[in-house]
Amino acid sequence: MPRYKLTIEYDGAPFVGWQAQDNGPSVQAALEHALGQLSPEPVRVIGAGRTDAGVHALGQVAHVDLGRAWPAATLKAAINFHLRPQPVAVLDCAEVAPDFHARFSACERRYLYRILNRPAPPVLDRGRVWWVPVPLDVGKMAAAAALLEGPHDFSAFRSSMCQAHSAQKTLDAVSVRRAGDEIRIEARARSFLHNQVRIIAGTLKRVGENKTTAEDVHRALATGDRREAGPTAPAAALYLVSVGYDASKRDS
Amino acid sequence: MPRYKLTIEYDGAPFVGWQAQDNGPSVQAALEHALGQLSPEPVRVIGAGRTDAGVHALGQVAHVDLGRAWPAATLKAAINFHLRPQPVAVLDCAEVAPDFHARFSACERRYLYRILNRPAPPVLDRGRVWWVPVPLDVGKMAAAAALLEGPHDFSAFRSSMCQAHSAQKTLDAVSVRRAGDEIRIEARARSFLHNQVRIIAGTLKRVGENKTTAEDVHRALATGDRREAGPTAPAAALYLVSVGYDASKRDS
Repeated sequence: MPRYKLTIEYDGAPFVGWQAQDNGPSVQAALEHALGQLSPEPVRVIGAGRTDAGVHALGQVAHVDLGRAWPAATLKAAINFHLRPQPVAVLDCAEVAPDFHARFSACERRYLYRILNRPAPPVLDRGRVWWVPVPLDVGKMAAAAALLEGPHDFSAFRSSMCQAHSAQKTLDAVSVRRAGDEIRIEARARSFLHNQVRIIAGTLKRVGENKTTAEDVHRALATGDRREAGPTAPAAALYLVSVGYDASKRDS
Repeated sequence: MPRYKLTIEYDGAPFVGWQAQDNGPSVQAALEHALGQLSPEPVRVIGAGRTDAGVHALGQVAHVDLGRAWPAATLKAAINFHLRPQPVAVLDCAEVAPDFHARFSACERRYLYRILNRPAPPVLDRGRVWWVPVPLDVGKMAAAAALLEGPHDFSAFRSSMCQAHSAQKTLDAVSVRRAGDEIRIEARARSFLHNQVRIIAGTLKRVGENKTTAEDVHRALATGDRREAGPTAPAAALYLVSVGYDASKRDS
């Protein structure tokens, strides 16, 4: 059975998240339904990251095994045709080696968190950004973000629902920069804990407001106490930007 | 009566356009209604540009005379409060000299036209871009755009509804550049004819598809025949970016 790697953009707003669940529509189910129109057998789509309800993706990656071979461009167009009118689209499609696994072969995930930092509420980016009307100190946010880079126990930066065995993760990079009225937090790691980027964003926002200091962030890391970190920032401003793979696992 | 200059962002989708009309909600009426909550007298808002139905603004400018003086930040916050939940927000507010006129004092208008040029349909930018799935030749589009710069008779590039006395306009700059999957057309002039930017975008798109040549664009300018130019591109991908004023007419 040929295996295909799909790169996917979606608007998280109408979905209960990536993963198929009983309580509402999921991105995974939308893709499986679209692929089901192309295949006599039921199709299972495996994603690289299980984004939460409301979280968007610019470049989620998934793999799927199909009963027959398709030209990649034809398959992409056919899936996109059957996805309509849902806000999900396959941006790229490629046949990959049978040992490629969207989740387990991934060696890097990048997330973007968008804060709109101006007195006026969001208009064209409504539902796409976290609106913070009070001015944030980006320099302090960036300095605190730097403390989070590297290997740490991120117990204070994960949801109580997080099912990972260990909270030990290596954050390869966290950057904070201003672009006009927007503050963009970008995070890169092999993998993340549940809500890790949103708790980092919520913590850095408090640093930017001068309600939390870099020392508090240091203490949150040291103690592993969730209450020492900031609140979980809203889902609608978080984007899974891309998923990276070793060259040896890349498109065949 | 103190006069205020307002810089305004709006999502054009739910509106019949900037100008108050009988056939549906307008941005002007939304602003006048919000200002009406702050003033015992009826308030008239004068905009710099009368954007069409569906056209967005990142920086429309308007002026308004109020019965009493307001601190600018307070006025901005109060208007934004009363605009909710409509997708219109005042980004900036400043008291200006009584001879400032949003429309007649304006010496420059900038527009942006966004084309999403990829096989997959728009997702996060749905309703914000013109989706053109076939690859466009940006080099040819830019070369044709250069022909439009300068003073010309733009009769072929205006709507049959255009009420301007003369089609003679000077286009200060038109640029076409690719940014990822997006092609961004930016146009700058003292003023524009009705549908001028959308007809330019529709024409340049046909050039990018190799359906029209730079010579055809030249002929459209020379003949003034609307049929020689391309179709009017969709409103939802057009943005009024900013309106410029002479320094002497700027915020007092």
